[in-house]
Amino acid sequence: TWSIGIDVGSVSAKGVIFNGEKWDYVVIPTGWMPRQAGKEVLDQLLRKADIGLDNVGIIVGTGYGRVNLDFTHKTFSEIVCHARGAHYLFPQTQGIIDIGGQDSKAIAIDSEGKVKDFILNDKCAAGTGRFLQVMAQVLGYEVSELGERCGTTEPVEIGSMCAVFAESEIIGLLAQGVSQERIVAGVLLSIARRVGTMATKLNLGPHVTFCGGVAQNQILQRFLKEQTGWEMEAPEKPQLVGALGAAIIGYELCGGGK
Amino acid sequence: TWSIGIDVGSVSAKGVIFNGEKWDYVVIPTGWMPRQAGKEVLDQLLRKADIGLDNVGIIVGTGYGRVNLDFTHKTFSEIVCHARGAHYLFPQTQGIIDIGGQDSKAIAIDSEGKVKDFILNDKCAAGTGRFLQVMAQVLGYEVSELGERCGTTEPVEIGSMCAVFAESEIIGLLAQGVSQERIVAGVLLSIARRVGTMATKLNLGPHVTFCGGVAQNQILQRFLKEQTGWEMEAPEKPQLVGALGAAIIGYELCGGGK
Ligand code: SF4
Repeated sequence: TWSIGIDVGSVSAKGVIFNGEKWDYVVIPTGWMPRQAGKEVLDQLLRKADIGLDNVGIIVGTGYGRVNLDFTHKTFSEIVCHARGAHYLFPQTQGIIDIGGQDSKAIAIDSEGKVKDFILNDKCAAGTGRFLQVMAQVLGYEVSELGERCGTTEPVEIGSMCAVFAESEIIGLLAQGVSQERIVAGVLLSIARRVGTMATKLNLGPHVTFCGGVAQNQILQRFLKEQTGWEMEAPEKPQLVGALGAAIIGYELCGGGK
Repeated sequence: TWSIGIDVGSVSAKGVIFNGEKWDYVVIPTGWMPRQAGKEVLDQLLRKADIGLDNVGIIVGTGYGRVNLDFTHKTFSEIVCHARGAHYLFPQTQGIIDIGGQDSKAIAIDSEGKVKDFILNDKCAAGTGRFLQVMAQVLGYEVSELGERCGTTEPVEIGSMCAVFAESEIIGLLAQGVSQERIVAGVLLSIARRVGTMATKLNLGPHVTFCGGVAQNQILQRFLKEQTGWEMEAPEKPQLVGALGAAIIGYELCGGGK
């Protein structure tokens, strides 16, 4: 039997289908209608796995849009699902840092993938993926391009803690002729500092999984390592950890396929 | 002899010329070059008063751009200048709330116009004029129009504390068909709550002067009164209080024209 996890976030809707051995996934933009995005993810997953809904034992929802999904059997918080997903991918992981589109979190997990403690920031855009989105827009890039845009240049110092004030600061830096590379590096250092400060309030230990759409950004990874002093490993598809966790939790609830 | 006060803020540069009896003023946009804006204010003031620089006993600078003004004789912080200016206009005033373009402050003053205590927010755009600027832009208005745009409509509840998240929230509200009037009222209530919360940490007492470019906004005044429980009076030109204070301080330094 198959289990499906669907994670509807502010930016993208992610789905994972899992049968205890292998898993496949779908990612689409959330757009304005979370329910419809979630439904589309479900349909695409069934097509990809070439199965019908009657082969699916359970559908588990997570993410901020989970409340809109009327076709799920269970819902779990992103915190719980991230913990489960990261533990599956990296059994030795002791903590998670997740930079999402409109929040960021640090989660301490035990050796079985259960949540020990967590911190969430969803109040101030400055420590979330939203900060990167605003800054990328000013610079005329996609968020996904930011990693390739700076290499190892010396980051410019961005003094403003606030996303709104940092935006003006960057416009001023561009006008002064500071290179885009140095500004991109400064933006990445700035968010690494903020998220690092939040995460180090928990003692996540040396093995930390870095999740969320921007986790593949190598420069951001390096800055976060420097800020926290922890090892940081990012899964190949770091935005899927929540949906994967939801699918695994669902699989276990169904009796693990037995 | 005349004294000149020049207050170069993030949005506009203000100047006041004062001779112990009467005063006149100039306001221009700061633009990208604070020094040039300050110099332009000085030139316009001299022309308005029809005097030469040799009739001016002292030039006092204030505002964040004061460091760029190489032609001033003295500089004082905005806090000190606001206190002095508000005391001159309203001798009974016990406190000041100032919502500026990139900061906001609450100042407790004694019966002689001296600063007793103050609180400043220049870290988070959400409690400053910048919040109004961002929201006005989304709605397609000027900040100065916001007061006329809502009347006594019931404010819509804006849940996001953050300027960046509130911007998205407003775009969502517009898409849902919530009226612009209710959104404008919601924006004004939102900033009144934030600034009110800051200001009531000081015990400013019942007579409070409301300064800064947005202080003439009647709806914002009303919301701030409701939030703080204080009387609120705004000068006719609330953005001039700092420059006026600077000119008065200068006049006194010159021996009060004697
Ligand atoms: S500091 Fe800036 S980004 Fe953070 S809550 Fe305030 S307005 Fe939002």
